[in-house]
Amino acid sequence: MSNWSTFDTQMMSRAIALAEKGRYTTRPNPCVGCVIVYQNKIIGEGYHQRAGQGHAEVNALKMVHDNGLSAEGATAYVTLEPCSHYGRTPPCALGLINAKVARVVVAVTDANPEVSGRGITLLREAGVEVDVGLLCEQAYDLNLGFMKRMKTGLPWITVKIAASLDGKTALSNGVSKWITGSAARADVQKYRASHCALITGVETILVDDPSLNVRYETLGELTTRHTKDEFFQPLRVVLDSRARLTATQQLFSIQSPILLVSGCHYPESVKAEFPEHVSFLQLTCDSSGRIPLLALLTYLGQHANSVLIEAGATLAGAFVAQGLVDEVVLYQAPKILGSHGRNMLQLPDYSTMEQTPALQLIDERNVGQDKRYILRYNQPY
Amino acid sequence: MSNWSTFDTQMMSRAIALAEKGRYTTRPNPCVGCVIVYQNKIIGEGYHQRAGQGHAEVNALKMVHDNGLSAEGATAYVTLEPCSHYGRTPPCALGLINAKVARVVVAVTDANPEVSGRGITLLREAGVEVDVGLLCEQAYDLNLGFMKRMKTGLPWITVKIAASLDGKTALSNGVSKWITGSAARADVQKYRASHCALITGVETILVDDPSLNVRYETLGELTTRHTKDEFFQPLRVVLDSRARLTATQQLFSIQSPILLVSGCHYPESVKAEFPEHVSFLQLTCDSSGRIPLLALLTYLGQHANSVLIEAGATLAGAFVAQGLVDEVVLYQAPKILGSHGRNMLQLPDYSTMEQTPALQLIDERNVGQDKRYILRYNQPY
Repeated sequence: MSNWSTFDTQMMSRAIALAEKGRYTTRPNPCVGCVIVYQNKIIGEGYHQRAGQGHAEVNALKMVHDNGLSAEGATAYVTLEPCSHYGRTPPCALGLINAKVARVVVAVTDANPEVSGRGITLLREAGVEVDVGLLCEQAYDLNLGFMKRMKTGLPWITVKIAASLDGKTALSNGVSKWITGSAARADVQKYRASHCALITGVETILVDDPSLNVRYETLGELTTRHTKDEFFQPLRVVLDSRARLTATQQLFSIQSPILLVSGCHYPESVKAEFPEHVSFLQLTCDSSGRIPLLALLTYLGQHANSVLIEAGATLAGAFVAQGLVDEVVLYQAPKILGSHGRNMLQLPDYSTMEQTPALQLIDERNVGQDKRYILRYNQPY
Repeated sequence: MSNWSTFDTQMMSRAIALAEKGRYTTRPNPCVGCVIVYQNKIIGEGYHQRAGQGHAEVNALKMVHDNGLSAEGATAYVTLEPCSHYGRTPPCALGLINAKVARVVVAVTDANPEVSGRGITLLREAGVEVDVGLLCEQAYDLNLGFMKRMKTGLPWITVKIAASLDGKTALSNGVSKWITGSAARADVQKYRASHCALITGVETILVDDPSLNVRYETLGELTTRHTKDEFFQPLRVVLDSRARLTATQQLFSIQSPILLVSGCHYPESVKAEFPEHVSFLQLTCDSSGRIPLLALLTYLGQHANSVLIEAGATLAGAFVAQGLVDEVVLYQAPKILGSHGRNMLQLPDYSTMEQTPALQLIDERNVGQDKRYILRYNQPY
């Protein structure tokens, strides 16, 4: 269907806005919103809040019934194809059929090629009219990570960079406090809170000694919508190819999962000192002694929809150069630090403009005194 | 006066808009606009179009008379203090007095400390009411170069940079075609057209072989307001400390003034080959063999209000590091070229953020696919 009515579009926009409410809480499930309409009136709506709890369609149908109404003959707007499998909850497609919904409008089909289209088929076989594709890119953008992981097994990869106008992330001596302002730093906290994992390099840990956690008090307006417990702490992944870390860094004092990725064993005496929330992954390093990044992301893709890379130019650049990065979020301060400053991305020495990886500008806005760019190397659709 | 009426502000805004029309044509004179009002109606207005032709006040008074009206008892809004000296035209202050104007509103006083305030005094002594300071920063911005040169003897110095988001102006091999898009490149042409002189380095000439002229056909909407002859070509200044240039470069084939600045003589045989529009300046180089930049700017300040630096990171960085740059105009393309690319400004190796020269963001806008930032190292007021 291509000529959607204004009303259909309004209802799907509302379903997307509802889905968006689950951004920080549904992982590893996708954010989904649902609006149920009868005779051009909303009679129920809902969204998925947390894995293990009701799906969007279930919550919307519950609201219809709680209002003493029936969904018979109604239209349901759903941001993602209703599921067709028995998981922790019965299939949503069946729920809509049982409720005798007449029409279902779906924004995007399930990204998992094994189940994609099954929910729609189930509905159509039961005589429900199904229209697919309304606001599909917006609905897709709600779940970039989930969709990519379902399709490819890999998480959606975002590189975060804070730099000056001349592209420097620090002075030559490593001083970087503060290039960007407090608003940009608070915005980074929201990025962390919406990602399943963070990746950084051992050098960053040894030099800057960051905690790399989500600090509730910096989440601003999000704290009016969520309690502290509702947020996830992302898995903190540290690439430590030569197993140099010991349990002394700040990072370890924060009680949330850490994955240390190395190319060799940590000495048993060192390993014994790490707290319980630390786990280990050993991967065979390449001939240059570097952690194989695709193998790492494949491992993380078993559970993580999205990974935020907060690392120096060498590690972040390696991810980009290997074509593994989907998105760059760049905070740029109106400063010029000069040629001795540290570069943002270590990339190969290109000899033509065409060789430089093509980027598409997706979004640009002011964050306090700084600018935030979102750029994509890969298009998700 | 600090409580300006809305009407006064509207009239001065109009005078500023009129002055602006002379931006590309008045040099080395300032842009000035004048609006003459009687009983809240505009009875005459004018602006300075070209050195040697009528000043703004003269043109505005002429319009009053051409309309068969009189300026007696009227108010004149002038963006710059009326002149008090006999030059190619009689003093404008006298013209206003003779026309029996009752009140003169002046945006900014003359920047030349030797004459500043004299025009106002002349008017007041003749019984004219004079109010000073309405929209003074806007009026000042019309003539940043003229004002700075009158105050200090030095031109207003702008560094132009075209770079990627990671601050690279070229790949390591010098390839820079094209980082920014055609709209940004056309905007640079307008910058050239509004500047009295351009400075570049011999390396840029030898490697890129640019013409560094204003190309009328790229001036876009400006060509609907001005004929080709109305534009100036900026003086093209090339720093060639060791006198390495010969008359073979593209630059020399364009018939507009060039100044070659060197630390030693050009061989007579080479010198004889340069066309007539080339002149020479020899300055004593510093101990590192570099042209003394302040001496050069002092020389240029004899005639040039404004200088645009279009040079590589070394030369442009030297101007910045020596505190000689007032403004940076940075065109930034949504690309990342990587760590091997060329830096935009070679600056000292700072060890604290406080040591980096402070920049103030003045303006920011989209130019085609790129962003244009205007940043200032020095405040003009």
